Amino acid sequence: MLRTHTCGELRIENIHQEVTLAGWVQRVRNKGGLIWVDLRDRYGVTQLIFEEGSTDKALLDKAASLGREFVVQAQGKVIERTSKNDKIPTGDIEIKVESLTVLNSAKVPPFIIEDETDGGDELRMKYRYLDLRRNVVREKLQLRHRMMQETRKYMDAQDFIEVETPVLIKSTPEGARDFVVPSRVNPGEFYALPQSPQTFKQLLMVSGFDRYFQIVKCFRDEDLRADRQPEFTQIDCEMSFVSQEDILNTFEGLTKHLFNAVKGIELEEVKKMTYAEAMKYYGNDKPDLRFDMKFVELNDLAKGKGFSIFDSAELVVGICAQGAGEYTRKQLDELTNWVKRPQIGAKGLVYVKCNEDGTYKSSVDKFYSNEDLKAWAEKMDAKPGDLLLVLSGDEKSTRKQMSELRLKMGEDLGLRNRTVFKPLWVVDFPLLEWDEETQRYHAMHHPFTSPKKEDIPLLETDPGAVRANAYDLVINGVEIGGGSIRIHDRATQQLMFKHLGFTDEEAQKQFGFLMEAFEYGAPPHGGIAFGFDRLCAIFGGSDSIRDYIAFPKNNSGRDVMIDSPSTIAEEQLLELSIRVALEKK
Amino acid sequence: MLRTHTCGELRIENIHQEVTLAGWVQRVRNKGGLIWVDLRDRYGVTQLIFEEGSTDKALLDKAASLGREFVVQAQGKVIERTSKNDKIPTGDIEIKVESLTVLNSAKVPPFIIEDETDGGDELRMKYRYLDLRRNVVREKLQLRHRMMQETRKYMDAQDFIEVETPVLIKSTPEGARDFVVPSRVNPGEFYALPQSPQTFKQLLMVSGFDRYFQIVKCFRDEDLRADRQPEFTQIDCEMSFVSQEDILNTFEGLTKHLFNAVKGIELEEVKKMTYAEAMKYYGNDKPDLRFDMKFVELNDLAKGKGFSIFDSAELVVGICAQGAGEYTRKQLDELTNWVKRPQIGAKGLVYVKCNEDGTYKSSVDKFYSNEDLKAWAEKMDAKPGDLLLVLSGDEKSTRKQMSELRLKMGEDLGLRNRTVFKPLWVVDFPLLEWDEETQRYHAMHHPFTSPKKEDIPLLETDPGAVRANAYDLVINGVEIGGGSIRIHDRATQQLMFKHLGFTDEEAQKQFGFLMEAFEYGAPPHGGIAFGFDRLCAIFGGSDSIRDYIAFPKNNSGRDVMIDSPSTIAEEQLLELSIRVALEKK
Repeated sequence: MLRTHTCGELRIENIHQEVTLAGWVQRVRNKGGLIWVDLRDRYGVTQLIFEEGSTDKALLDKAASLGREFVVQAQGKVIERTSKNDKIPTGDIEIKVESLTVLNSAKVPPFIIEDETDGGDELRMKYRYLDLRRNVVREKLQLRHRMMQETRKYMDAQDFIEVETPVLIKSTPEGARDFVVPSRVNPGEFYALPQSPQTFKQLLMVSGFDRYFQIVKCFRDEDLRADRQPEFTQIDCEMSFVSQEDILNTFEGLTKHLFNAVKGIELEEVKKMTYAEAMKYYGNDKPDLRFDMKFVELNDLAKGKGFSIFDSAELVVGICAQGAGEYTRKQLDELTNWVKRPQIGAKGLVYVKCNEDGTYKSSVDKFYSNEDLKAWAEKMDAKPGDLLLVLSGDEKSTRKQMSELRLKMGEDLGLRNRTVFKPLWVVDFPLLEWDEETQRYHAMHHPFTSPKKEDIPLLETDPGAVRANAYDLVINGVEIGGGSIRIHDRATQQLMFKHLGFTDEEAQKQFGFLMEAFEYGAPPHGGIAFGFDRLCAIFGGSDSIRDYIAFPKNNSGRDVMIDSPSTIAEEQLLELSIRVALEKK
Repeated sequence: MLRTHTCGELRIENIHQEVTLAGWVQRVRNKGGLIWVDLRDRYGVTQLIFEEGSTDKALLDKAASLGREFVVQAQGKVIERTSKNDKIPTGDIEIKVESLTVLNSAKVPPFIIEDETDGGDELRMKYRYLDLRRNVVREKLQLRHRMMQETRKYMDAQDFIEVETPVLIKSTPEGARDFVVPSRVNPGEFYALPQSPQTFKQLLMVSGFDRYFQIVKCFRDEDLRADRQPEFTQIDCEMSFVSQEDILNTFEGLTKHLFNAVKGIELEEVKKMTYAEAMKYYGNDKPDLRFDMKFVELNDLAKGKGFSIFDSAELVVGICAQGAGEYTRKQLDELTNWVKRPQIGAKGLVYVKCNEDGTYKSSVDKFYSNEDLKAWAEKMDAKPGDLLLVLSGDEKSTRKQMSELRLKMGEDLGLRNRTVFKPLWVVDFPLLEWDEETQRYHAMHHPFTSPKKEDIPLLETDPGAVRANAYDLVINGVEIGGGSIRIHDRATQQLMFKHLGFTDEEAQKQFGFLMEAFEYGAPPHGGIAFGFDRLCAIFGGSDSIRDYIAFPKNNSGRDVMIDSPSTIAEEQLLELSIRVALEKK
C-alpha cells in the first residue's frame, strides 16, 4: 500500500508514530513560513503541516506548489495539534511531514468539490467522476451499498436463493417498450432486455426453488421523466406455497430490518388499507400517512342549498387543515390559483375558516349559514383555528385534485418530515384498468396476477370491478414496490390473456413456454419487487433517485460523461444485419 | 403458508404432531390397501402413508390417482416408521395422512426428474424449469448463491463498496464484439452492453471510492464455444493506492475465504510464477499444478546424434510420466496418434521407457545409445518404471503441443483430482502480443494496463518484450481471473494507445473522457476480475460453466426454452429507426 493509514483514522493515541498517508489536496493554507494542507480520502481528512526551519526549503516549496485535488503521498510523524479542531475525528492531531510525493497533479476542477458546490446539473453530470468525490454524493452510494448488503443478509437468512436471471431475453409487446439487441448469429432476430425477471422467477417456482430473490437491473424504453431511468434496479422476489399474508409479513420483515440496520429506526407495524379505502380517503393509491387530513364527503350537507356548483357536482369533498384558520386572503387566493393551474385542473376552491369564537367565515357565505358550516366542521372534526378546503366536480377528477391539494397542504404545514417514515400496504387492487386509447382493459399489475376467487364470475359481467390478489408497499406517499399472488394454472392464465385481448395464437407465441410450464406441476406462488433506487432515495431523504445511481442518464437517456448513445461503425451494422433508417425531415 | 413444515425437517422428535406439508410427488408405491407417497421439495423428501381401514376410501383413491410431479398439500400426523430409511434425514418418520389436496396436476415429464436422468441436453434445455427440479442441478445454483453471499461478506468486511455500473454504455471497437442496443430517443445512435465495467471502475477510483467491487453481468458477442456464454458474470474489483502485491494479497484472501466458507477447505498459500516460467515449464500461461511433470529441455543432449528430426528442431522437450513405463505398444501408438491429431498438430512422439533393470527402451534406439538415454533420464529426474515423452519442432508450437500432452497424461494417470485445489498467481505477463491477422500489436490484457517502469524504454525498440504489471489467478489449470495495475496519467495512456495503433482522434473519441479524468487527480490504482461462472464450476468440480447458470444459452446464443432471440414487430423497428437487412443468398 502507498499508505500506512487512511486520512480518517489517526487519533491522539497515534502521536509520535511515523505514518504515510495518501489522498487528495482539499485545501492549502500558506502563512509564509508555515503551510497547512488538508489531505482528503474517502475515510476522512487529516491535516499536514510544513514548517520553515524544521522542514527543508525544497519540501516547503513543494508544499506551496500543491493545487486543489492534487494526489499526494506524505510521510511524517503524528503530532498533537496546538489548536484542535473538534469538528473532525482527526482534529486532535496533524502530520509533521518529512517527505512529500506528488502522485498526480490536477487541473483546476470545473466546479468546487465540497458539500456545497457551484456546479450546475449538466456540468456535474459531465464530470460525474468529480461530483462523486463530494462527500454528500459518495455517502448516498455508500448508503446504497449498505442497503444491498443488508437486503441480501436478510433474504439469505430467510432461505431465499439469489439466482441471476438472463439479461438477453425475448421481446413481448405487453407493458412498456423493450430495449432490443440485434443477434449477429441469428440474423433478423433480436433479444430484448428484461423489464423485469417476471416469467423467469415464476419458472423458478415451477422448478421448486421455493424462495428466490435477486437485486437486478431492469430496463424500460419509456419517455423519461425527471425521476425515471432507462435502467433501474429492483429487489425481486418470489415464494411458493404462500398466501398474500405470508408475502406481506416477509417483506414487512425486510423493510423493518433495513430501517433498523441502516438507519437505526424501529419501524412501527405496517398498516394495511384497501385500494378502495385509499382512493376514498386520500384520492390516491399511495397515500402519504405522515399526516392525516382524510377526505370527508360533504354531498349530504352541501347540496340543495342553492349553490349550483355543488348542486350539479357528482362529489363535494373536503379536507381539514389543522391550525390553518389564520391563512390570509392572499394565501387563500394563492391556494385557489394553485388548484386552478392546468396541472391540477380544479375549477375553484371553497374554504371555510373555523374562527376561534366559534363562528365561520367562508367563500360561500352567501349560500350557507353559520349553522350549515358548523355541520360541515363537525362532520370534518374541525376545531377552532382550522381551515376547511372543499372541492367539487366529477368524482374521479375531484378526488385526484383533492389528493394534490392535501399533499400541498401537508407540505406547507410542515407535516411531511423526511426523517419520519410511515409505511403502508395497499391491498386489493383492481385486476384490470380500462384504457381509453386502445379501448380495452389492461392488466393493472401484469397479466400473471391472479384475480380474487370470489370475483372471478365478475370477469364476464363487470371486469373493472374484479379485485386482484395484488398489493403495494407505500412509504411516505411513494410506491416502493408491489406484487401479487400469481396465476399458476394454464386455464386461468389463458382466460386472463383472453380478457386482455390476446388471441390464442399471440398468447401461445409470447407466453407458451410459461403456460406449458404450468402443466408440469406448478405450485401456488406469489412475489413482489421493490424499486431499489427509490427505496434508497427514501432512506436518504431525497425526492430524486438520480443521486443514488452512480452513473445516471439524463432525461434524453444520454450519458453525457461518456457521450452515449453514439453512432457505430458501418461494419458493425453489416455484421448485425441491420441498417439505420432515419425518417426524412 | 400452505404448509407447517418443509419436506426436509421432520424428525423422530416430531412424532404425534399434526403437520401440513406441500410439495411434489416423487414416487407412489401402491400395495393395494397401502399406499406410500414420497413428497419432495427443495428441502428434502418425506414419506406419506395412506392405509386402508385407518384412511377413508375416498382418500385412498385420491392417493392412488396421484401422478409423478403432481403438486399436493397433505395434512396428517407424524408417526414413527416401522422400517426406517437411514439414507434420508426424515427416514425415521412418515406422515399418516388425514386429508390431501391436489394443488396442481402434472403431465408426464419429458424426462425423468431424478439425479440420473434419461433426458438429453437439448430436451433438458428446452424444459430447463424441469431440469432445475433435479437436486444435482439445483444444488449447483445453491452453491453459486452461497459463493455470491460469501464473496460479498468478505468484500464488505474489507471496506469495498459495491457500486452498480451502467449496462447501457458506449460501443468501443477494441476487444471482442459488442452487443448493441438501438436508442429510440436518439435515432441512429446505439448503446453497447459492457464487456466489463473497466472504464467505470477506473473512474470510481478517480472519484476516490478507494475500493470498489461488483458481481456483475458482462456481455461479449463472440462465436460461442462449449464453455462460453454471451452473458456471463464477473466479480469485478478495483483498489487505489496499491501495489500489485496488495491486490494479490487481497484476492488471495478472498479465494481462501471462499474455499473455507463454502467447501471447508483450508487452502495453502498461493504460489507465484512468472509468465516466462509458466511458458518454459508448462508451455501454458495457466498451468495445472495438481501434478508436476515439468518440461525438461533436451536440446543439449538430443541434438547432434544423427536423428535429423531433432537436429533440425528449434526445441526438443520432454516430460517424465511417473510410473507409466509399463505402457503397452498399443497405448503408445494411441498416444502418438493423439498428438498427431490436427487439434494438437505434432508430427510425431518419441518415447523412452525406463525399465526396472536400469536399461531403456525407446522409439529412437537407432540413434541413441543406452548411455544417451540414461543422460536424458537423469536430466529429467526419471526413475525406473517411468516413461519419458519427447516432442520437437519450432519452439512455440512444440511447447503448446507438450502442454496438451502433459494435461492428457495427468488425466490418464489420475493426477487431476477434482477435490484437490492448486491455486497459482501467474505474474509479469507481456504487455503486448503480436496479431498476425492485423499485423499489429494488441494489448494482451487491455489498453489500460501499465507497463513495468523498467521496460518502458523497450516500447520503442522491442515492444513484444515489455512486461506488464498484470497477473492471473489460475486454479487447477483454469484461468479464474486476472487484472493489472492501471495507467493513471494521460501521457502514458496516450503513448499506449499510440502503440496499439490508435490515431489521436480515435483515442480521443473513444476514451477521451477517461484521459480527461486522469488530468483531474487520478490516484495510482489497479484491480482484478474473476470469472464467476467458472469459479463456481471449479468449486463444483465441473468442467462446464453451463450447469452453474440458471438459464444458459446454447452454442448459437439461443435460449431454446423461451425461443429467443426472435423476430420483432415492424412497428418496433420503425420506432427504433432501424431496418433488418438480410444478405441475399
